[in-house]
Amino acid sequence: MTGVLHGVGLGPGDPDLITRKAARLIAGAQVVAWPRLAGGDSFARSIAADLIAPGTREIAIDVPMTVDRAPAQAAYDHAADEIAAVLDAGTDVVCLCEGDPLFYGSFMYLFARLSGPYRVDIVPGVTSVTACAAVAGLPLAARNETLLVLPGPLPEQELTARLAQADTVVLMKVGRHLPKIARVIAAAGLTDRAVYVERATLGAERVLPLDQAPPDAPYFSMVLVVKGGDPWL
Amino acid sequence: MTGVLHGVGLGPGDPDLITRKAARLIAGAQVVAWPRLAGGDSFARSIAADLIAPGTREIAIDVPMTVDRAPAQAAYDHAADEIAAVLDAGTDVVCLCEGDPLFYGSFMYLFARLSGPYRVDIVPGVTSVTACAAVAGLPLAARNETLLVLPGPLPEQELTARLAQADTVVLMKVGRHLPKIARVIAAAGLTDRAVYVERATLGAERVLPLDQAPPDAPYFSMVLVVKGGDPWL
Repeated sequence: MTGVLHGVGLGPGDPDLITRKAARLIAGAQVVAWPRLAGGDSFARSIAADLIAPGTREIAIDVPMTVDRAPAQAAYDHAADEIAAVLDAGTDVVCLCEGDPLFYGSFMYLFARLSGPYRVDIVPGVTSVTACAAVAGLPLAARNETLLVLPGPLPEQELTARLAQADTVVLMKVGRHLPKIARVIAAAGLTDRAVYVERATLGAERVLPLDQAPPDAPYFSMVLVVKGGDPWL
Repeated sequence: MTGVLHGVGLGPGDPDLITRKAARLIAGAQVVAWPRLAGGDSFARSIAADLIAPGTREIAIDVPMTVDRAPAQAAYDHAADEIAAVLDAGTDVVCLCEGDPLFYGSFMYLFARLSGPYRVDIVPGVTSVTACAAVAGLPLAARNETLLVLPGPLPEQELTARLAQADTVVLMKVGRHLPKIARVIAAAGLTDRAVYVERATLGAERVLPLDQAPPDAPYFSMVLVVKGGDPWL
């Protein structure tokens, strides 16, 4: 019997937003794996730290900070091999994933490599999208409204075109792309509908009108543009 | 001191996907409120049933099954008044919300009415979007991919135009709109990229290629169209 790989969403950062299922799997795990930026700390591990039992084996997955394909593939190949060896020995592995495993997460690269030969179960998690809305007190979408998620690194021209395409637009991975994002939103006349959210649910969170956002936005920041006004309100 | 209204996301249906924070708030509540389709059962209450302590006061919010504005507004006005009376007496109210409170939920109508005069705290929840992806084993979006959420009731022409506008398209509230949705996807040549998911995490879930979806899709069904192939995979 080979082991099962559990891809477990941890939610946006507050350990209290871990689901009961994820908490139980982590607490009962013999082996956990977690991503970290190569050489650095693991945000995922920090969210789940209070649940990892003493003596649990931990596998660090070094996520390469590169836009090149080959080193990224090599890093995920290596991590998949290490996890596969544990699964082959009949032991389950619980892989810790920030947010949700299949929503802009590095877990999907392990999933692509291991879901053929092994059983992979996914536990969905709270995403940063609804966490930011909760912190900002901003309804995202109702009834027949549409919602579009745009990564901030997209080119300015593409952001401009896409901003018009939904009632609510969520800009993720803002960080150093904030000036570009602010320009796009201003050009569309939507600055007064845009809210900047930083470190949602992480304790030191900030919610600001976009035109008051700091120049040094961290990677874990987001901009919500809610155009709609639901007629039922 | 007036009470606090907690809008608490319960996740997609599996009680095990309730977050630790939501579970604690529900278990400790003196008063809970939950929506139901007028006269029917409450899906939200059924998700959280094992957490509601004996003796807890329960407020049923009758959600009108209407597309007319006035009766809907009257229903939410009435529910807000009932909750406000509890808050005025200094008692907190925990409002149970399917999925996430601010993502296509009726809670936002209470939020609009009560967040001015009262403190309203939101606990985000796992949405049906990532729950369906988890059940289907389908990565939603990676790196710079875009994701668009479309309500199934939108007109066919609008669905056709919008389907082209993102790498991943999530069609919610499918139900009786399935034939229209399937036509739109087929016309775009995307049927082989489309997956039908029914009752995700509810126990009797079904995951099928879109062209094998049943003619009688329930309201709690979804279609995921994932066009992308992340080049890093």
